[in-house]
Amino acid sequence: MKIIHNVIQMQAIADQLKKKSKTIGFVPTMGYLHNGHLSLIARSVKECDITVVSIYVNPLQFGPKEDFKKYPRDIKTDLKLCRQQNVDYVFIPKDEQIYPVGYMTEVRVKGITESLCGKSRPGHFSGVTTIVNKLFNIVKPGIAYFGQKDAQQSLVIKKMVKDLHMPLKIKVLPIIRELDGLAMSSRNAYLDAKYRRDAILLYLSLKKAKHLIAKKLRKTAKIISQMKRLLSQSEFATIDYIVIVDADSLNEVKQLKAKTKVLIALAVYIGKVRLIDNIIVKVD
Amino acid sequence: MKIIHNVIQMQAIADQLKKKSKTIGFVPTMGYLHNGHLSLIARSVKECDITVVSIYVNPLQFGPKEDFKKYPRDIKTDLKLCRQQNVDYVFIPKDEQIYPVGYMTEVRVKGITESLCGKSRPGHFSGVTTIVNKLFNIVKPGIAYFGQKDAQQSLVIKKMVKDLHMPLKIKVLPIIRELDGLAMSSRNAYLDAKYRRDAILLYLSLKKAKHLIAKKLRKTAKIISQMKRLLSQSEFATIDYIVIVDADSLNEVKQLKAKTKVLIALAVYIGKVRLIDNIIVKVD
Repeated sequence: MKIIHNVIQMQAIADQLKKKSKTIGFVPTMGYLHNGHLSLIARSVKECDITVVSIYVNPLQFGPKEDFKKYPRDIKTDLKLCRQQNVDYVFIPKDEQIYPVGYMTEVRVKGITESLCGKSRPGHFSGVTTIVNKLFNIVKPGIAYFGQKDAQQSLVIKKMVKDLHMPLKIKVLPIIRELDGLAMSSRNAYLDAKYRRDAILLYLSLKKAKHLIAKKLRKTAKIISQMKRLLSQSEFATIDYIVIVDADSLNEVKQLKAKTKVLIALAVYIGKVRLIDNIIVKVD
Repeated sequence: MKIIHNVIQMQAIADQLKKKSKTIGFVPTMGYLHNGHLSLIARSVKECDITVVSIYVNPLQFGPKEDFKKYPRDIKTDLKLCRQQNVDYVFIPKDEQIYPVGYMTEVRVKGITESLCGKSRPGHFSGVTTIVNKLFNIVKPGIAYFGQKDAQQSLVIKKMVKDLHMPLKIKVLPIIRELDGLAMSSRNAYLDAKYRRDAILLYLSLKKAKHLIAKKLRKTAKIISQMKRLLSQSEFATIDYIVIVDADSLNEVKQLKAKTKVLIALAVYIGKVRLIDNIIVKVD
């Protein structure tokens, strides 16, 4: 496994691999790898000739009051995990090459970035699309892997790739959960015991919603109000948003219709830790 | 010479050529080719294995009150000229593939797009960077050629390529002029005889400025006021802007300094036709 810090070097490696017709699988991460990341890496290793994992905590996607500085980092463990997974290259670029002085370009997807996390985190998604666009141009993958936990992010990146005709496929893999159902996230590291206990309520409220839909409840306002009631059991939980939206367009759905697919997504603060989770439900 | 209308097909051709290690030279145009375009094409044919010319009048870079609909078009002559120049592929994409329903992504360079033409034409440069980004992803050139007449555009595109780590070189070639000095432009087709006569004043005012700088005039306000006086000879001329700026940053220069390079650029309406021109002057 090779560790690459230099953008030009990474591009040269990618060019060489492409000339040899090798398919590059790419897993962009912010490090502090958990089983969610590892499931993406494992899939890439299985499907592609070469797997590149990037580790870069992208300042551009954090708001001024967000957790960029204290975002958990542990490069040593990350590298060990990558090595165990038979990753070929770990790309750890330097800030000064990614955002050199005078950096001025932004890639932005409109529309679907304005609701859900985009509403609570202005500028977040243009930070994501800008860095991911750059990473795709550097690593030149044939397939890039993302996790369904960041449901909106996956849709936004798919949209960018399609709209800009970027020459790669995006694959979105299922959420990996702890035994009790909590979605894996690097931010779970912030949760101490009392918060950790209540964090499970995000998933329980999603399961509740799925159950209500199976029982033919069709008014989304009613479903959401039951989810809220469940979350209110925690004295530490503050709801940022709960939405039931069309799974492709992210447009709000008021009344569930047969043969449609909805995304039920929520962001909830447990104490000061903002967690997100979601499920996709097919309505019968 | 092959004419390609389909995005997917163009990408497949580019992939094949790259696998054979062919360098693709690319000249993106809005058609109605003149000698300026032809100089770019000739350079590409000389320097690259394969030359691709695109012809696409990009609606996104025209303002709502601008000349998108009446922009001159003559595909038949364009194709004849390309054939004469030994172009390999002419790419003429369809609107519905470039901007399909639900299109939402924008590539924007900040800072240097806010002055000069960016000020008079809000949204123009994000239209340019978005289409050029897409075209680069489709045609996959090793070198793309642009004309110095659109001085700001060239800088903006260079910035985008650098900032997004796009894997190609940008070459900017000199302005090609009519015998009397008028910069070649597809929009010159709009000029009838009385306007055509006065259109030469743009270049004359630039030559005047260069002369004044050679004569050691250093206050740019004085230079600009002499340019304005010259342009005021035409009853049809309305100045949009005249600027003297640093040739790289486009920052305004008030007092010329030795060993610097400035861009003197102007946009002037002759009647209703908006023309632009510029020169780069090295200050001794």
